Amino acid sequence: MTPKPAIPRPVLERIVLYLRQLERFRRDGIDTVSSPELGDAVGASAAQVRKDLSYFGQFGQRGHGYDVRELARTLRSLLSLDREWRAALVGAGNIGRALCTYRPFRERGFHIVALFDNDPHREGLTWARLKVQPMSQLPRTVRDLGIELGIIAVPPEAAQLVADQLVAAGVRGILNFAPTRVVVPENVPIRSADLAVDIESLAFLVANRAEAPEP
Amino acid sequence: MTPKPAIPRPVLERIVLYLRQLERFRRDGIDTVSSPELGDAVGASAAQVRKDLSYFGQFGQRGHGYDVRELARTLRSLLSLDREWRAALVGAGNIGRALCTYRPFRERGFHIVALFDNDPHREGLTWARLKVQPMSQLPRTVRDLGIELGIIAVPPEAAQLVADQLVAAGVRGILNFAPTRVVVPENVPIRSADLAVDIESLAFLVANRAEAPEP
Repeated sequence: MTPKPAIPRPVLERIVLYLRQLERFRRDGIDTVSSPELGDAVGASAAQVRKDLSYFGQFGQRGHGYDVRELARTLRSLLSLDREWRAALVGAGNIGRALCTYRPFRERGFHIVALFDNDPHREGLTWARLKVQPMSQLPRTVRDLGIELGIIAVPPEAAQLVADQLVAAGVRGILNFAPTRVVVPENVPIRSADLAVDIESLAFLVANRAEAPEP
Repeated sequence: MTPKPAIPRPVLERIVLYLRQLERFRRDGIDTVSSPELGDAVGASAAQVRKDLSYFGQFGQRGHGYDVRELARTLRSLLSLDREWRAALVGAGNIGRALCTYRPFRERGFHIVALFDNDPHREGLTWARLKVQPMSQLPRTVRDLGIELGIIAVPPEAAQLVADQLVAAGVRGILNFAPTRVVVPENVPIRSADLAVDIESLAFLVANRAEAPEP
Protein backbone atom coordinates (compact mmCIF):
# COMPACT_ATOMS: atom_id res chain seq x y z
CA MET A 1 0.00 0.00 0.00
CA THR A 2 1.36 3.41 -0.88
CA PRO A 3 1.40 5.87 2.00
CA LYS A 4 -1.45 8.36 1.94
CA PRO A 5 -0.46 11.99 1.59
CA ALA A 6 -1.44 14.17 4.56
CA ILE A 7 -4.79 15.79 3.82
CA PRO A 8 -4.97 19.49 4.74
CA ARG A 9 -7.69 20.19 7.30
CA PRO A 10 -9.72 22.57 5.14
CA VAL A 11 -9.82 19.86 2.43
CA LEU A 12 -11.01 17.34 4.99
CA GLU A 13 -13.76 19.67 6.13
CA ARG A 14 -14.93 20.25 2.56
CA ILE A 15 -14.95 16.49 1.91
CA VAL A 16 -17.27 16.06 4.90
CA LEU A 17 -19.54 18.75 3.46
CA TYR A 18 -19.49 17.16 -0.02
CA LEU A 19 -20.68 13.97 1.65
CA ARG A 20 -23.54 15.89 3.32
CA GLN A 21 -24.50 17.31 -0.08
CA LEU A 22 -24.38 13.86 -1.71
CA GLU A 23 -26.68 12.52 1.00
CA ARG A 24 -29.12 15.34 0.35
CA PHE A 25 -29.04 14.62 -3.40
CA ARG A 26 -29.71 10.96 -2.67
CA ARG A 27 -32.68 11.78 -0.44
CA ASP A 28 -34.01 13.98 -3.24
CA GLY A 29 -33.76 11.04 -5.65
CA ILE A 30 -30.92 12.50 -7.72
CA ASP A 31 -28.59 9.86 -9.20
CA THR A 32 -25.78 11.84 -10.81
CA VAL A 33 -24.10 15.07 -9.81
CA SER A 34 -21.53 17.34 -11.47
CA SER A 35 -18.51 18.96 -9.82
CA PRO A 36 -20.10 22.45 -9.87
CA GLU A 37 -23.27 21.10 -8.22
CA LEU A 38 -21.20 19.43 -5.53
CA GLY A 39 -19.13 22.58 -5.06
CA ASP A 40 -22.23 24.69 -4.52
CA ALA A 41 -22.64 23.03 -1.12
CA VAL A 42 -19.50 24.67 0.19
CA GLY A 43 -19.01 27.59 -2.18
CA ALA A 44 -16.14 25.79 -3.92
CA SER A 45 -15.34 25.85 -7.64
CA ALA A 46 -15.61 22.74 -9.79
CA ALA A 47 -11.81 22.66 -10.02
CA GLN A 48 -11.54 22.76 -6.24
CA VAL A 49 -14.00 19.87 -5.91
CA ARG A 50 -11.96 17.74 -8.33
CA LYS A 51 -8.71 18.65 -6.56
CA ASP A 52 -10.17 17.87 -3.12
CA LEU A 53 -11.49 14.49 -4.26
CA SER A 54 -8.16 13.66 -5.89
CA TYR A 55 -6.63 13.32 -2.40
CA PHE A 56 -8.75 10.21 -2.02
CA GLY A 57 -8.51 8.74 -5.50
CA GLN A 58 -10.09 9.03 -8.92
CA PHE A 59 -13.81 9.56 -9.09
CA GLY A 60 -16.35 10.24 -11.79
CA GLN A 61 -15.90 10.38 -15.52
CA ARG A 62 -15.24 13.62 -17.33
CA GLY A 63 -18.51 14.75 -18.84
CA HIS A 64 -20.58 12.22 -16.91
CA GLY A 65 -20.42 13.55 -13.37
CA TYR A 66 -20.42 11.43 -10.26
CA ASP A 67 -22.68 8.58 -9.28
CA VAL A 68 -24.28 10.01 -6.13
CA ARG A 69 -24.78 6.73 -4.29
CA GLU A 70 -21.37 5.32 -5.13
CA LEU A 71 -19.39 8.47 -4.31
CA ALA A 72 -21.26 8.85 -1.00
CA ARG A 73 -20.49 5.26 -0.06
CA THR A 74 -16.83 5.62 -1.00
CA LEU A 75 -16.37 8.87 0.90
CA ARG A 76 -18.11 7.45 3.96
CA SER A 77 -15.75 4.52 3.95
CA LEU A 78 -12.65 6.65 3.32
CA LEU A 79 -13.62 8.97 6.15
CA SER A 80 -14.23 5.98 8.46
CA LEU A 81 -17.82 7.06 8.90
CA ASP A 82 -19.17 3.63 8.01
CA ARG A 83 -18.67 2.46 11.59
CA GLU A 84 -19.68 3.47 15.12
CA TRP A 85 -17.51 5.62 17.36
CA ARG A 86 -17.72 5.76 21.14
CA ALA A 87 -16.94 8.97 22.98
CA ALA A 88 -16.55 10.11 26.58
CA LEU A 89 -17.79 13.60 27.38
CA VAL A 90 -16.11 15.57 30.16
CA GLY A 91 -17.99 18.52 31.59
CA ALA A 92 -21.62 18.30 32.69
CA GLY A 93 -22.34 22.00 32.14
CA ASN A 94 -24.51 23.71 29.55
CA ILE A 95 -22.44 22.81 26.51
CA GLY A 96 -22.07 19.23 27.73
CA ARG A 97 -25.80 18.90 28.23
CA ALA A 98 -26.44 20.14 24.70
CA LEU A 99 -23.91 17.72 23.21
CA CYS A 100 -25.37 14.73 25.06
CA THR A 101 -28.62 15.17 23.20
CA TYR A 102 -27.20 16.51 19.92
CA ARG A 103 -28.98 14.40 17.32
CA PRO A 104 -26.48 14.79 14.43
CA PHE A 105 -23.77 13.08 16.50
CA ARG A 106 -25.88 9.97 16.96
CA GLU A 107 -27.26 10.07 13.43
CA ARG A 108 -23.71 10.00 12.11
CA GLY A 109 -22.53 7.13 14.30
CA PHE A 110 -20.99 9.05 17.20
CA HIS A 111 -22.23 7.82 20.55
CA ILE A 112 -21.50 9.55 23.82
CA VAL A 113 -21.43 6.55 26.15
CA ALA A 114 -19.99 8.09 29.32
CA LEU A 115 -20.21 11.44 31.08
CA PHE A 116 -17.69 12.84 33.57
CA ASP A 117 -17.47 15.85 35.83
CA ASN A 118 -15.29 16.66 38.79
CA ASP A 119 -17.93 18.73 40.57
CA PRO A 120 -19.33 16.56 43.40
CA HIS A 121 -22.64 18.43 43.07
CA ARG A 122 -23.06 17.06 39.57
CA GLU A 123 -22.09 13.49 40.39
CA GLY A 124 -24.97 11.12 40.01
CA LEU A 125 -26.96 13.47 37.74
CA THR A 126 -28.40 11.63 34.78
CA TRP A 127 -28.61 13.11 31.29
CA ALA A 128 -29.73 11.26 28.22
CA ARG A 129 -29.58 8.04 30.31
CA LEU A 130 -25.94 8.69 31.29
CA LYS A 131 -24.96 9.09 34.93
CA VAL A 132 -22.30 11.71 35.66
CA GLN A 133 -19.17 9.92 36.89
CA PRO A 134 -16.20 11.35 38.79
CA MET A 135 -12.97 11.78 36.80
CA SER A 136 -11.32 9.05 38.86
CA GLN A 137 -13.47 6.56 36.92
CA LEU A 138 -12.23 7.78 33.53
CA PRO A 139 -9.38 5.28 32.83
CA ARG A 140 -11.49 2.30 33.82
CA THR A 141 -14.55 3.38 31.85
CA VAL A 142 -12.52 4.20 28.73
CA ARG A 143 -11.03 0.72 28.86
CA ASP A 144 -14.21 -1.15 29.72
CA LEU A 145 -16.41 0.55 27.12
CA GLY A 146 -13.79 0.73 24.36
CA ILE A 147 -14.04 4.51 24.18
CA GLU A 148 -11.89 6.04 21.43
CA LEU A 149 -12.81 9.73 21.46
CA GLY A 150 -12.84 12.32 24.23
CA ILE A 151 -14.95 15.48 24.17
CA ILE A 152 -13.90 18.41 26.34
CA ALA A 153 -16.74 20.67 27.48
CA VAL A 154 -15.26 22.21 30.63
CA PRO A 155 -14.32 25.85 31.35
CA PRO A 156 -11.12 26.99 29.62
CA GLU A 157 -9.03 26.97 32.79
CA ALA A 158 -9.71 23.24 33.31
CA ALA A 159 -9.29 22.15 29.69
CA GLN A 160 -5.58 21.28 29.69
CA LEU A 161 -5.85 19.05 32.77
CA VAL A 162 -8.85 17.24 31.27
CA ALA A 163 -6.97 16.76 27.99
CA ASP A 164 -4.04 15.24 29.90
CA GLN A 165 -6.39 12.92 31.75
CA LEU A 166 -8.14 11.84 28.54
CA VAL A 167 -4.80 11.07 26.88
CA ALA A 168 -3.60 9.17 29.95
CA ALA A 169 -6.86 7.18 29.94
CA GLY A 170 -6.13 6.09 26.38
CA VAL A 171 -8.49 8.00 24.11
CA ARG A 172 -7.23 8.25 20.52
CA GLY A 173 -8.62 11.65 19.56
CA ILE A 174 -10.05 14.74 21.23
CA LEU A 175 -12.75 17.24 20.30
CA ASN A 176 -12.30 20.42 22.31
CA PHE A 177 -15.24 22.75 22.95
CA ALA A 178 -13.38 24.80 25.58
CA PRO A 179 -12.44 28.19 24.13
CA THR A 180 -8.73 27.72 24.67
CA ARG A 181 -5.86 25.84 23.08
CA VAL A 182 -4.75 22.62 24.71
CA VAL A 183 -1.55 20.75 23.97
CA VAL A 184 -1.59 16.99 23.46
CA PRO A 185 0.99 14.47 22.20
CA GLU A 186 1.42 14.42 18.43
CA ASN A 187 -0.10 10.97 18.08
CA VAL A 188 -3.45 12.15 19.46
CA PRO A 189 -5.35 14.23 16.89
CA ILE A 190 -7.30 17.13 18.34
CA ARG A 191 -9.94 19.38 16.81
CA SER A 192 -11.21 22.58 18.34
CA ALA A 193 -14.83 23.53 17.86
CA ASP A 194 -14.93 27.30 18.17
CA LEU A 195 -18.50 28.49 17.76
CA ALA A 196 -17.42 32.14 17.73
CA VAL A 197 -15.67 31.66 14.37
CA ASP A 198 -19.07 31.11 12.78
CA ILE A 199 -20.69 34.21 14.22
CA GLU A 200 -17.64 36.31 13.39
CA SER A 201 -17.73 35.24 9.73
CA LEU A 202 -21.44 36.02 9.70
CA ALA A 203 -20.85 39.51 11.11
CA PHE A 204 -18.36 40.21 8.34
CA LEU A 205 -20.83 39.11 5.67
CA VAL A 206 -23.57 41.27 7.17
CA ALA A 207 -21.37 44.36 7.57
CA ASN A 208 -19.95 43.99 4.09
CA ARG A 209 -23.32 43.55 2.46
CA ALA A 210 -24.51 46.74 4.10
CA GLU A 211 -21.65 48.63 2.53
CA ALA A 212 -22.37 47.35 -0.95
CA PRO A 213 -24.66 49.59 -3.01
CA GLU A 214 -28.25 48.40 -3.15
CA PRO A 215 -29.08 46.78 -6.50
CA MET B 1 -14.01 53.23 -3.38
CA THR B 2 -13.33 50.19 -5.56
CA PRO B 3 -15.77 47.35 -5.03
CA LYS B 4 -14.44 44.58 -2.79
CA PRO B 5 -14.09 41.19 -4.42
CA ALA B 6 -16.25 38.48 -2.82
CA ILE B 7 -14.19 36.67 -0.21
CA PRO B 8 -14.57 32.89 -0.32
CA ARG B 9 -15.89 31.50 2.94
CA PRO B 10 -12.90 29.28 3.72
CA VAL B 11 -10.67 32.36 3.34
CA LEU B 12 -12.91 34.29 5.69
CA GLU B 13 -12.74 31.52 8.25
CA ARG B 14 -8.95 31.41 8.06
CA ILE B 15 -8.76 35.19 8.45
CA VAL B 16 -10.77 34.88 11.68
CA LEU B 17 -8.32 32.21 12.86
CA TYR B 18 -5.29 34.34 11.92
CA LEU B 19 -6.77 37.08 14.08
CA ARG B 20 -7.10 34.62 16.98
CA GLN B 21 -3.45 33.67 16.52
CA LEU B 22 -2.36 37.33 16.41
CA GLU B 23 -4.22 37.98 19.66
CA ARG B 24 -2.43 35.05 21.29
CA PHE B 25 0.93 36.36 20.06
CA ARG B 26 0.10 39.76 21.49
CA ARG B 27 -0.85 38.30 24.88
CA ASP B 28 2.47 36.43 24.84
CA GLY B 29 4.31 39.73 24.25
CA ILE B 30 5.37 38.92 20.69
CA ASP B 31 5.63 42.01 18.44
CA THR B 32 6.36 40.60 14.98
CA VAL B 33 5.20 37.45 13.26
CA SER B 34 6.09 35.78 9.95
CA SER B 35 3.66 34.26 7.44
CA PRO B 36 4.68 30.67 8.34
CA GLU B 37 4.10 31.38 12.06
CA LEU B 38 0.68 32.81 11.30
CA GLY B 39 -0.12 29.88 9.03
CA ASP B 40 0.71 27.37 11.77
CA ALA B 41 -2.50 28.41 13.53
CA VAL B 42 -4.63 26.92 10.80
CA GLY B 43 -2.29 24.49 9.09
CA ALA B 44 -1.88 26.86 6.12
CA SER B 45 1.30 27.48 4.14
CA ALA B 46 3.05 30.85 4.16
CA ALA B 47 1.94 31.38 0.56
CA GLN B 48 -1.68 30.71 1.54
CA VAL B 49 -1.45 33.24 4.40
CA ARG B 50 -0.16 35.92 2.03
CA LYS B 51 -2.83 35.11 -0.53
CA ASP B 52 -5.61 35.16 2.10
CA LEU B 53 -4.48 38.52 3.48
CA SER B 54 -4.23 39.96 -0.03
CA TYR B 55 -8.05 39.91 -0.24
CA PHE B 56 -8.00 42.67 2.36
CA GLY B 57 -5.01 44.70 1.21
CA GLN B 58 -1.25 44.77 1.48
CA PHE B 59 0.26 43.86 4.81
CA GLY B 60 3.76 43.39 6.17
CA GLN B 61 7.07 43.90 4.46
CA ARG B 62 8.87 41.08 2.74
CA GLY B 63 11.57 39.83 5.07
CA HIS B 64 10.23 41.78 8.05
CA GLY B 65 7.05 39.91 8.87
CA TYR B 66 3.90 41.50 10.25
CA ASP B 67 3.46 43.90 13.13
CA VAL B 68 1.26 41.82 15.44
CA ARG B 69 -0.63 44.68 17.05
CA GLU B 70 -1.22 46.57 13.82
CA LEU B 71 -2.32 43.58 11.75
CA ALA B 72 -4.68 42.47 14.54
CA ARG B 73 -6.25 45.93 14.71
CA THR B 74 -6.63 46.13 10.94
CA LEU B 75 -8.19 42.68 10.63
CA ARG B 76 -10.57 43.38 13.51
CA SER B 77 -11.73 46.52 11.78
CA LEU B 78 -11.99 44.88 8.35
CA LEU B 79 -14.02 42.04 9.85
CA SER B 80 -16.30 44.54 11.65
CA LEU B 81 -15.30 43.01 14.98
CA ASP B 82 -14.38 46.37 16.48
CA ARG B 83 -18.01 46.99 17.39
CA GLU B 84 -20.83 45.32 19.34
CA TRP B 85 -23.45 43.09 17.74
CA ARG B 86 -26.87 42.31 19.18
CA ALA B 87 -28.48 38.96 18.58
CA ALA B 88 -31.84 37.30 19.23
CA LEU B 89 -31.74 33.62 20.09
CA VAL B 90 -34.70 31.43 19.14
CA GLY B 91 -35.02 28.08 20.90
CA ALA B 92 -34.79 27.73 24.66
CA GLY B 93 -33.59 24.13 24.56
CA ASN B 94 -30.24 22.60 25.43
CA ILE B 95 -28.24 24.21 22.63
CA GLY B 96 -29.91 27.57 23.27
CA ARG B 97 -29.09 27.40 26.95
CA ALA B 98 -25.44 26.67 26.18
CA LEU B 99 -25.23 29.56 23.70
CA CYS B 100 -26.78 32.05 26.16
CA THR B 101 -23.84 31.55 28.49
CA TYR B 102 -21.16 30.91 25.86
CA ARG B 103 -18.35 33.22 26.96
CA PRO B 104 -16.52 33.57 23.62
CA PHE B 105 -19.59 35.22 22.07
CA ARG B 106 -19.62 37.98 24.70
CA GLU B 107 -15.85 38.29 24.75
CA ARG B 108 -15.88 38.98 21.03
CA GLY B 109 -18.67 41.54 21.13
CA PHE B 110 -21.70 39.35 20.36
CA HIS B 111 -24.49 39.89 22.84
CA ILE B 112 -27.59 37.75 22.98
CA VAL B 113 -30.11 40.32 24.18
CA ALA B 114 -33.39 38.46 23.67
CA LEU B 115 -34.58 34.89 23.92
CA PHE B 116 -37.62 33.37 22.19
CA ASP B 117 -39.45 30.08 22.26
CA ASN B 118 -42.88 29.05 21.10
CA ASP B 119 -43.37 26.44 23.81
CA PRO B 120 -45.73 27.97 26.40
CA HIS B 121 -44.05 25.81 29.05
CA ARG B 122 -40.81 27.67 28.51
CA GLU B 123 -42.33 31.15 28.44
CA GLY B 124 -41.20 33.24 31.37
CA LEU B 125 -38.15 31.05 32.08
CA THR B 126 -35.08 33.19 32.74
CA TRP B 127 -31.60 32.27 31.53
CA ALA B 128 -28.56 34.47 31.82
CA ARG B 129 -30.91 37.29 32.90
CA LEU B 130 -33.04 36.87 29.76
CA LYS B 131 -36.71 36.03 30.00
CA VAL B 132 -38.05 33.64 27.35
CA GLN B 133 -40.52 35.55 25.14
CA PRO B 134 -43.17 34.16 22.78
CA MET B 135 -42.41 34.41 19.06
CA SER B 136 -45.22 36.94 18.65
CA GLN B 137 -42.93 39.46 20.38
CA LEU B 138 -40.08 38.94 17.90
CA PRO B 139 -40.73 41.83 15.43
CA ARG B 140 -41.23 44.36 18.19
CA THR B 141 -38.19 43.29 20.20
CA VAL B 142 -35.92 43.19 17.15
CA ARG B 143 -36.98 46.75 16.35
CA ASP B 144 -36.85 48.10 19.90
CA LEU B 145 -33.47 46.63 20.80
CA GLY B 146 -31.79 47.18 17.43
CA ILE B 147 -31.13 43.46 16.98
CA GLU B 148 -29.18 42.64 13.82
CA LEU B 149 -28.46 38.91 14.10
CA GLY B 150 -30.72 35.92 14.66
CA ILE B 151 -29.56 32.60 16.08
CA ILE B 152 -31.63 29.49 15.36
CA ALA B 153 -31.42 26.77 18.01
CA VAL B 154 -34.68 24.91 17.44
CA PRO B 155 -35.28 21.33 16.23
CA PRO B 156 -34.69 20.87 12.47
CA GLU B 157 -38.38 20.60 11.61
CA ALA B 158 -39.02 24.09 13.02
CA ALA B 159 -35.92 25.80 11.59
CA GLN B 160 -37.37 27.07 8.30
CA LEU B 161 -40.37 28.71 9.94
CA VAL B 162 -38.12 30.40 12.50
CA ALA B 163 -35.80 31.61 9.73
CA ASP B 164 -38.77 33.10 7.89
CA GLN B 165 -39.91 34.83 11.08
CA LEU B 166 -36.44 36.22 11.78
CA VAL B 167 -36.18 37.61 8.25
CA ALA B 168 -39.66 39.13 8.48
CA ALA B 169 -38.72 40.71 11.82
CA GLY B 170 -35.79 42.42 10.11
CA VAL B 171 -32.62 40.67 11.26
CA ARG B 172 -29.73 41.14 8.84
CA GLY B 173 -27.94 37.81 9.28
CA ILE B 174 -28.65 34.33 10.67
CA LEU B 175 -26.54 31.75 12.47
CA ASN B 176 -28.22 28.34 12.21
CA PHE B 177 -27.50 25.62 14.77
CA ALA B 178 -30.35 23.40 13.60
CA PRO B 179 -28.97 20.42 11.68
CA THR B 180 -30.83 21.22 8.50
CA ARG B 181 -30.61 23.63 5.60
CA VAL B 182 -32.87 26.65 5.63
CA VAL B 183 -33.52 28.95 2.72
CA VAL B 184 -33.46 32.73 3.18
CA PRO B 185 -33.49 35.68 0.77
CA GLU B 186 -30.14 36.39 -0.88
CA ASN B 187 -29.67 39.64 0.96
CA VAL B 188 -29.64 37.90 4.35
CA PRO B 189 -26.35 36.06 4.91
CA ILE B 190 -26.67 32.76 6.75
CA ARG B 191 -24.05 30.52 8.34
CA SER B 192 -24.67 27.00 9.52
CA ALA B 193 -22.83 25.75 12.56
CA ASP B 194 -22.66 21.99 12.16
CA LEU B 195 -20.88 20.48 15.14
CA ALA B 196 -20.84 17.03 13.55
CA VAL B 197 -18.39 18.23 10.88
CA ASP B 198 -15.76 18.64 13.59
CA ILE B 199 -16.18 15.18 15.07
CA GLU B 200 -16.26 13.61 11.61
CA SER B 201 -12.96 15.23 10.64
CA LEU B 202 -11.53 14.05 13.95
CA ALA B 203 -12.66 10.47 13.31
CA PHE B 204 -10.89 10.50 9.97
CA LEU B 205 -7.66 11.73 11.54
CA VAL B 206 -7.85 9.05 14.23
CA ALA B 207 -8.66 6.23 11.83
CA ASN B 208 -5.99 7.30 9.39
CA ARG B 209 -3.35 7.60 12.06
CA ALA B 210 -4.08 4.09 13.23
CA GLU B 211 -3.41 2.78 9.73
CA ALA B 212 -0.05 4.52 9.47
CA PRO B 213 2.93 2.43 10.63
CA GLU B 214 4.15 3.26 14.12
CA PRO B 215 7.31 5.40 14.06
